[in-house]
Amino acid sequence: MGLGEFDLIARYFSRHRGTSEGVAVGPGDDCAVLATRPGMQLAVSTDMLVEGRHFLPTVDPARLGHKALAVNLSDLAACGARPLACVLALSLPRVDEAWLEGLSSGLYALADAHGCRLVGGDTTAGPLNLSITVFGEVPAGGAILRSGAQPGDDVWVSHAIGGGVGDARLALEVFRGRIALPGEALERVRRAMECPEPRVALGLALRGVASAAIDVSDGLLGDLSHLLRRSGVGVVIDADAIPRSADLAAQPAPLQRLCTLSGGDDYELVFTAPPANRDVVLAAARGAGVAVTRIGRVEAGAALQVTDGSGRRLDDAWTSFDHFRD
Amino acid sequence: MGLGEFDLIARYFSRHRGTSEGVAVGPGDDCAVLATRPGMQLAVSTDMLVEGRHFLPTVDPARLGHKALAVNLSDLAACGARPLACVLALSLPRVDEAWLEGLSSGLYALADAHGCRLVGGDTTAGPLNLSITVFGEVPAGGAILRSGAQPGDDVWVSHAIGGGVGDARLALEVFRGRIALPGEALERVRRAMECPEPRVALGLALRGVASAAIDVSDGLLGDLSHLLRRSGVGVVIDADAIPRSADLAAQPAPLQRLCTLSGGDDYELVFTAPPANRDVVLAAARGAGVAVTRIGRVEAGAALQVTDGSGRRLDDAWTSFDHFRD
Repeated sequence: MGLGEFDLIARYFSRHRGTSEGVAVGPGDDCAVLATRPGMQLAVSTDMLVEGRHFLPTVDPARLGHKALAVNLSDLAACGARPLACVLALSLPRVDEAWLEGLSSGLYALADAHGCRLVGGDTTAGPLNLSITVFGEVPAGGAILRSGAQPGDDVWVSHAIGGGVGDARLALEVFRGRIALPGEALERVRRAMECPEPRVALGLALRGVASAAIDVSDGLLGDLSHLLRRSGVGVVIDADAIPRSADLAAQPAPLQRLCTLSGGDDYELVFTAPPANRDVVLAAARGAGVAVTRIGRVEAGAALQVTDGSGRRLDDAWTSFDHFRD
Repeated sequence: MGLGEFDLIARYFSRHRGTSEGVAVGPGDDCAVLATRPGMQLAVSTDMLVEGRHFLPTVDPARLGHKALAVNLSDLAACGARPLACVLALSLPRVDEAWLEGLSSGLYALADAHGCRLVGGDTTAGPLNLSITVFGEVPAGGAILRSGAQPGDDVWVSHAIGGGVGDARLALEVFRGRIALPGEALERVRRAMECPEPRVALGLALRGVASAAIDVSDGLLGDLSHLLRRSGVGVVIDADAIPRSADLAAQPAPLQRLCTLSGGDDYELVFTAPPANRDVVLAAARGAGVAVTRIGRVEAGAALQVTDGSGRRLDDAWTSFDHFRD
């Protein structure tokens, strides 16, 4: 095949050599060694991307490299952890150097933007699969968890300024042939699907401000239900308050509901915070360069209720995206 | 498919709930949170196993669960790190509950034996792929690296008492139809291939004793060459000194050489230590319940030379197993 495993790693995945803050031993040994500062703990998360399931075979490899890391950084963001390092396990059906160069460039661009060093990995032949594990630093006891929501808290969702939730699912509907979009709109929603921006700065700013958080990977309601279960609370969500882009707002109402409520692949943060923190939340978002919108309220009990803007209960069954069911 | 992603994780991969020493936040949140003790650092490694490449479709799932973690723990062992936790990313072509029960039981049995808690993961539909990332604790600056070998050091290899190196490759030769073995011998070498025992206790005992170490996953000479390159030294290996099981010793000499020198999948430790440490090395092995054998000597220069027992240079090209070449 020309390029062997070790050459491949040396050429495309060894840019972050040596030590740095938090990295005592970098790539090239049996293990990397991470050194958290006194009083800090290490947040860890892992996400695996499979061709045909999480991305299309035709995806730009730079976007794939970006997304493989972005979905992991999004988990750190939901915990309020500062990215430190990551490892990449990669299974490849063949060695395509142009493709690898693209993957590597997209991955390192996002890693560098967040100070996240690629400190190790594994490469093998096999069906295309990217499995990244990320490490982030968080003050001892300071991680934002799913379990802290309290009745009376506001429910917020993050989004791009001028954008919203659900564009990734809208793009998927186009690729599934169910709807059509004009070229520029398609490129915008495709970008939302392929190049999500992890809300790392927002997550950091929400430490001590949000009572609970989760990132939206499988759909807003489905992910929110995990947070509710861990917190032992219920929620009322106003579906009409969920922000959406102009592209999504131009679609029929049922499709808007599908995309915003159970779309998936948004990588926005859904979080709760006491009403007393509203100004702090808004300032945190401004500082992070993103928007946040209040979409509901935490209640006692365990029910996840969804209403329209007039407070009328929606009775559709909006279920979470499940990789073994969809 | 009956069982969804979240049910599957709850049923088979959520045994290590809650907190424990070193684990501040266990499974069930966006991130797990690890807390290393003061003065300690975190060793990290990742290995991905792909069906047809690293294991046969017919493998007992409990052995596969064992092996997926074992190959990762072996990297911690090579660094002298104490296992703390791991995460599992799993891609599955279908939900087979009996198979998952087996995988889970084999994985947890080895994890429990080493105090390694499964603190998180990801599950998706796709071609069968197991990607584990392990975390181990090591004193700050105390990890055994590949880079510390000095001219004059002994070269050692670990092995089971009464066993040796190369049985996993011997089993592979049987499965490839190139040789035949009687039933009991086949079961023994198959076990070596499918159920490697990571040398964790030995690695811990070698901290401050070994000057450099690496685990043998791709073949003894190939892996040793990585250690040499990182240390900037050469080596002379006595091929006849490499320990081998009675099953392998009964094979023709060329097959013995192939299996011991470039077999792969051994998950033994190859390490270097000053001759002054010989007694300490032997005591470390006794304490860990394994054997160690001296197989060579580190030299100045960069050459990897292999001789027979009489000191005559072998001129065969014994190359490392490479997943993109073999």
